[in-house]
Amino acid sequence: MALPENPSAERLAVGLMSGTSADGIDAALVRIEGAGAEVSVTLLASDTLRYTPSVRQRLQGCMGPEAGNVREMTLLDAYMGELFAHAVMHICKKGSVDPQAISAVGSHGQTLFHHPESIQYPGFSVSSTLQIGSPAIIAQRTGITVVSGFRRRDMAAGGQGAPLAPYLDYILYHHRSRSRIALNIGGIANITALPAGAGPGEIMAFDTGPGNALLDLAAYHFSGGKKTYDVDGAMALGGRVQAPLLQALEEHPFLRKAPPKSADKDEFGPLFLDGILARFPSLASPDVMATIAAFTVRSVATAILEFCVQRARYEEIIVSGGGAKNPLLMEGLQEAFPKLTISASDDYGIPSGAKEAVLMAVLADATLHGWPSNVPAATGANASVILGDITPGAGFFEKE
Amino acid sequence: MALPENPSAERLAVGLMSGTSADGIDAALVRIEGAGAEVSVTLLASDTLRYTPSVRQRLQGCMGPEAGNVREMTLLDAYMGELFAHAVMHICKKGSVDPQAISAVGSHGQTLFHHPESIQYPGFSVSSTLQIGSPAIIAQRTGITVVSGFRRRDMAAGGQGAPLAPYLDYILYHHRSRSRIALNIGGIANITALPAGAGPGEIMAFDTGPGNALLDLAAYHFSGGKKTYDVDGAMALGGRVQAPLLQALEEHPFLRKAPPKSADKDEFGPLFLDGILARFPSLASPDVMATIAAFTVRSVATAILEFCVQRARYEEIIVSGGGAKNPLLMEGLQEAFPKLTISASDDYGIPSGAKEAVLMAVLADATLHGWPSNVPAATGANASVILGDITPGAGFFEKE
Repeated sequence: MALPENPSAERLAVGLMSGTSADGIDAALVRIEGAGAEVSVTLLASDTLRYTPSVRQRLQGCMGPEAGNVREMTLLDAYMGELFAHAVMHICKKGSVDPQAISAVGSHGQTLFHHPESIQYPGFSVSSTLQIGSPAIIAQRTGITVVSGFRRRDMAAGGQGAPLAPYLDYILYHHRSRSRIALNIGGIANITALPAGAGPGEIMAFDTGPGNALLDLAAYHFSGGKKTYDVDGAMALGGRVQAPLLQALEEHPFLRKAPPKSADKDEFGPLFLDGILARFPSLASPDVMATIAAFTVRSVATAILEFCVQRARYEEIIVSGGGAKNPLLMEGLQEAFPKLTISASDDYGIPSGAKEAVLMAVLADATLHGWPSNVPAATGANASVILGDITPGAGFFEKE
Repeated sequence: MALPENPSAERLAVGLMSGTSADGIDAALVRIEGAGAEVSVTLLASDTLRYTPSVRQRLQGCMGPEAGNVREMTLLDAYMGELFAHAVMHICKKGSVDPQAISAVGSHGQTLFHHPESIQYPGFSVSSTLQIGSPAIIAQRTGITVVSGFRRRDMAAGGQGAPLAPYLDYILYHHRSRSRIALNIGGIANITALPAGAGPGEIMAFDTGPGNALLDLAAYHFSGGKKTYDVDGAMALGGRVQAPLLQALEEHPFLRKAPPKSADKDEFGPLFLDGILARFPSLASPDVMATIAAFTVRSVATAILEFCVQRARYEEIIVSGGGAKNPLLMEGLQEAFPKLTISASDDYGIPSGAKEAVLMAVLADATLHGWPSNVPAATGANASVILGDITPGAGFFEKE
């Protein structure tokens, strides 16, 4: 195989992520050193290649349970493979690296369907996930060994196939003597709790509840559809937290569920918000915004206090995702945890927007070395497994 | 990796084939020795696990261009993975071999759609193929390294993804000093021409036209639906070849096409046969049967005489597939080539019914050793490539 004979030696890898929003491909080129979950990762280049409207339309036509048909899916699998191969060549060029110098491409693939719950079929109960983007095409076009299908192997081991990010959180943030929490505030917020000195098998990761989802919905609502999010928290300016509304929001049953748990975006969607707001028709919009921000912070704080602090004294919360740019949330967090350092993940060398693509590169590198990379405590898998399928590139068998 | 340090050393592999007829899984356990296309293969156990009607129904619901949806396909992918894993364990038990002693499982997967022709998408022309049956589940349940997705990689290299069988024909039948033709008579007939001393890159393989397809259709027709094929050629007994009908059949344009070529079953289907027979309404059924048998033989003979004999003096035709059991075809072949030895593939140690499963085991073994195994002259690929995706089993990284 084309891997360095010394597994700790420096190598280059490319990661590709294409999220369920189907807006484009995030690509990252990284340098990796070291072994196992103790590797160190340096980002050399990253970029987002946005899908054209026609690509997005094709993809969306194959998303959702009743969507798609085998012909369209089969051809799209090849087409997405071509686009992913293009993204690999693009990021190599941007990073001024010869593709032949890359040891692995990790490709998440475009998810068309994800079904983590088991369904009874004759003789077997099954759960599964479908990502397209032919790794054979990526390997053939780029000459680089490709690893793909990460989620499917975790699910084969009884896991939910998600989240995969805690493995990278561990690599980036674990510390011998400092206990840290990595908090990602996307539409939904999730945390990875990293007690000082804990191994990758001892970390905890789960969704805490809403991230930006409710704030964005409310911004859209109060701006009459003009704003998709509250820039710099301006719409909440001067607003005051309204205790009855906050209490109503906090009745959401998700907050009391024990981890591991994952929230569907719909659980904190328009139906939930409209239902609650209907009970408080006379509140001013800044007050509602401020209260939703407080609720968002509170759901994170509750998760940390209820499920994490029993195991370690945390010193730092490292925030990533769009929410890290919202002063209302960042200040709220600091107020909720006055003794903790609240920092931004960008300070740790991997910009928030590149994180998932970096994760894919790191997972591919782990697989090619035979290192398991799921986090069973996060996915619910019954075993630590080597993730993904390996599609050999030109150099894969060179050293045999 | 768990491969023997000496690549020629003896190892065990399992192959799984599930054909487009969706009637079951053919499983084979083989012992392989040697290296590259010079390996020798011994069949240790083989079996067919038939699908239940409910499985067949589910599969058929996802076959054909407009069929299926992503939910059903995603779940079926996992379900078929479970069935394939079961088939692996079954064939190991039947062969009295501990699964831990198996170095590779080659899984063809259940084809839902195969689209070898290129279609223009924005920026790229694409062709693709879709086989389901999660290799992650097979690897996780059996602990054995799985290789799958063979056709997709040949197509990524510009090939049609088919036929793959010529690689096994080469392994089983190539000879330093004897030129041989391997003839498989399934619904469609195909040949692999193996000139004496030729390397795997110098063989030729293509479909010759009808195999049993037309004979079976006619048997069904003349028996009023009671027979699906003409047992021992009895329905043609006493029949005489009718020259005008034979000539009409031979006008089929497929026979004159230059190889590489592949025939769709529909090209020699009911529409073709009914159209021709309507022109000869008064012929007795034994005469029609005899003439169709003669046409079938003639299409094979034409292929050999037009496209093969220029390159070598063939001495032997080795026949496999259901047609090898039809005395009418076998005698017809002997008459067409009086100086050649006509033998049955079973004499070479691999029963006809197990051949495709054996092929999958041999392809998986080749991939794990880094040996290319497509036959570009047969598939039209622009390169010799290492086929498939590797899903690591428990032992894959042991020897690194």
